Amino acid sequence: MPSGAGRQTQGKAMESTENTSLIVDLYELTMAAAYFQNRVRSVATFELFVREMPPERSYLVAAGIESALDYLQSLRFTADQVEFLRAQPAFRTVQPGFFDFLEKFRFTGEVHAVPEGTLVFGEEPLLRVTAPILEAQIVETYLLSVIHFETLIASKAARVVEAARGRSVLEFGTRRAHGPEAGVRAAKAAFVGGCEATSNVLAGRLYGIPLAGTAAHSWSMVFPTEREGFERLLDVFPETAILLVDTYDAIRGTEVAAALGRKFKGVRLDSGDLGKMSHQVRRILDAHGLQETRIVASGDLDEHKIDALLEQGAAIDIFGVGTQLATSGDVPSLGVVYKLVEIERDGKLEPRAKFSDQKVSYPGRKQVFRFSRDGRFAEDLIACAHEEFPEASPLLQPVMRDGRRVGLKTDVHENRSRVLAGLSQLPEACKRLDRPGSYPVRKSPALEKLLGEVRNHYLGRPVGS
Amino acid sequence: MPSGAGRQTQGKAMESTENTSLIVDLYELTMAAAYFQNRVRSVATFELFVREMPPERSYLVAAGIESALDYLQSLRFTADQVEFLRAQPAFRTVQPGFFDFLEKFRFTGEVHAVPEGTLVFGEEPLLRVTAPILEAQIVETYLLSVIHFETLIASKAARVVEAARGRSVLEFGTRRAHGPEAGVRAAKAAFVGGCEATSNVLAGRLYGIPLAGTAAHSWSMVFPTEREGFERLLDVFPETAILLVDTYDAIRGTEVAAALGRKFKGVRLDSGDLGKMSHQVRRILDAHGLQETRIVASGDLDEHKIDALLEQGAAIDIFGVGTQLATSGDVPSLGVVYKLVEIERDGKLEPRAKFSDQKVSYPGRKQVFRFSRDGRFAEDLIACAHEEFPEASPLLQPVMRDGRRVGLKTDVHENRSRVLAGLSQLPEACKRLDRPGSYPVRKSPALEKLLGEVRNHYLGRPVGS
Repeated sequence: MPSGAGRQTQGKAMESTENTSLIVDLYELTMAAAYFQNRVRSVATFELFVREMPPERSYLVAAGIESALDYLQSLRFTADQVEFLRAQPAFRTVQPGFFDFLEKFRFTGEVHAVPEGTLVFGEEPLLRVTAPILEAQIVETYLLSVIHFETLIASKAARVVEAARGRSVLEFGTRRAHGPEAGVRAAKAAFVGGCEATSNVLAGRLYGIPLAGTAAHSWSMVFPTEREGFERLLDVFPETAILLVDTYDAIRGTEVAAALGRKFKGVRLDSGDLGKMSHQVRRILDAHGLQETRIVASGDLDEHKIDALLEQGAAIDIFGVGTQLATSGDVPSLGVVYKLVEIERDGKLEPRAKFSDQKVSYPGRKQVFRFSRDGRFAEDLIACAHEEFPEASPLLQPVMRDGRRVGLKTDVHENRSRVLAGLSQLPEACKRLDRPGSYPVRKSPALEKLLGEVRNHYLGRPVGS
Repeated sequence: MPSGAGRQTQGKAMESTENTSLIVDLYELTMAAAYFQNRVRSVATFELFVREMPPERSYLVAAGIESALDYLQSLRFTADQVEFLRAQPAFRTVQPGFFDFLEKFRFTGEVHAVPEGTLVFGEEPLLRVTAPILEAQIVETYLLSVIHFETLIASKAARVVEAARGRSVLEFGTRRAHGPEAGVRAAKAAFVGGCEATSNVLAGRLYGIPLAGTAAHSWSMVFPTEREGFERLLDVFPETAILLVDTYDAIRGTEVAAALGRKFKGVRLDSGDLGKMSHQVRRILDAHGLQETRIVASGDLDEHKIDALLEQGAAIDIFGVGTQLATSGDVPSLGVVYKLVEIERDGKLEPRAKFSDQKVSYPGRKQVFRFSRDGRFAEDLIACAHEEFPEASPLLQPVMRDGRRVGLKTDVHENRSRVLAGLSQLPEACKRLDRPGSYPVRKSPALEKLLGEVRNHYLGRPVGS
């Protein structure tokens, strides 16, 4: 996070910390040292993609791209950090030149990426890095980590928001996210995925996301009676207070609130049979002339519970979703990888692939072409980057050249709009919560041919020869 | 993270960021404003605990305690942050006095906690905060978030380490953790839970955790042949290099490495049937006089896969565990809560509890008493704090008074030793990976009686009266 005491620049705060450069797997740095010492300076291309869609997901929302680019642009190693590395047993046999190199390190490469908020599928590159191999290697861990997590949460959020069928979804998950900092990233990614607001104040400050909140059980428990608690909260927040009514008994709590003779914004239900209670609560509120008082529901909700509540006609206006959203509870990780696809050798670009058991990756720089019909996405084609399909939209765009941003940085609001627009173009069958239709993604004949050639080259003869 | 360019103090780095104070749910601050404006200055006691053990866990490793205390001690709001809050729509009706209060805010309370690394169970308080209600409320989100996540990962790590039966476990999960910062916390918590080293360099720097790593597939793919890749790596790291042999074919890769005629530390297998291959690889290495070369296995491992591999006698010396460990893949969240249990009213301390459907919490300050027999933990008793059981060990210790640490800060090495000592005292049945025996945790008669009294008080008559 920024060391300056001044104003934060939106979106930069999580990436420009002094320590970020050491959030790296040791092997990236030992490999870098070995490339350096062996004078390997070849330009390499790596692609970052999710290997396979988990069965619980039919699309992904690409996120963390902006975070990744901020990281690449600001990556530096301080003298202090370099001293720490030099003193590590792992670097005992490394010559001093590498540490001088690290102190002057800048990322100077070229990056292509899909715009943040783009809907993507398995095997489709979200980001492509072309840079001297040392640079491209060192940034692997951080790029994977930040794009993995923000994509994971934005994708979950889109499902939750779809399930809510136009009702607001508020992100409340910081307390159960994977640490406080993950809470901030989750809030950001959930907003990009379509949530309307977050309870996380820092996410509001850093990214301009609307803030929302209600009250906790402790508020009601501090006062001798629930009524007194409600009245004292309304004294301070006459327009915005949302009363949590289930500290002792949700129906009695609602009756107490409704009998105050005051207007208030909403009530929150956090336990019990939310669907059934929502109707009782609605009736009590309406009977007291509180037709405009909203009903907020929370309590370990996810897209399936929200869908079931709305199927049964629950009178819920707003959903507060925490744990399951901020951890992507049903799919807490994606098989995201960063694979070498091309390397320069004697001035020539050679495609590369990996053939480990069940983990084949396709060689060469790629582009994803999206074909649409009648205003809907029809199918994607993963092709070699040099191929052309004028009737399709290429998803990967140049975003960085010589280590500097090309084109404009997009903010969370634009990225969120891109998600909502994408969802409106995704075939309906792909949006079903259960057993969704799978979106067609093919590979071009040229790409399949290239894979065959590389496979022949490496597996057609003894590998060590 | 720290803004100074100087040396990091171990363990402080993740908590002392300028922005940390805004990692808070909005409602903590709006409730604080409402307490302030209503002149509610009562001293309150909150307890932090995991409501119910997930079926996949038979014990938890308490972690994140030191992070929580660092946070409490350093929590401040800058003028800039207060200005941001003042400008939020949510605070429109709040009087200026509250913002002056925030600028002078310090945590001045008293804290009891179990030592980090203590084994704990459902409903047992890990931390107890006694402070003016405003202070105790504002810190809720961060305390939950940091203790939740570090406990989650330390608990998972202990299972993985137990499954490895004395073989080393290396934590490799940063790329799939919930963001880069979660990767650092996961590395720390995994070490506390018993892992031997981490690949996360920043965790090494901040907490003094040993660093470990091997090489990636990209290293082998850069060179025209695998043999050349292996040789160039060994040139730079003759003593420490671990060769990744499965880029094209693990057995052929091992043959290539073994035929180099050089000694090297290890090989890594990252795909395929690890158990079967480990024997083939061992034979090849031994046949070349490389009896001391270690076999490292990785590739979406967890405690169940490790257990199955060792059951079938796999010749694996070291396990590299990533995704499933750093995300606690089978249990990606715990039901951790922070509940008001006591409030001062007219100079008297009144116990408080919550009775929402299926979410009852016990009132009053508690202590956890651990009874041992024959050097093993026999049972725990959750009792009122004032009760005494001289034959048992009380788990909660005073750790903070008047907002300052009491007693010594413990580092990750001590905390890790505490976990390993605790595991050696836990009944064997509780350590089984599948359908483990549940550890007996009872409540004292005095605590049950108190719950009955509070329940009568609140539910025996209309709540709002």
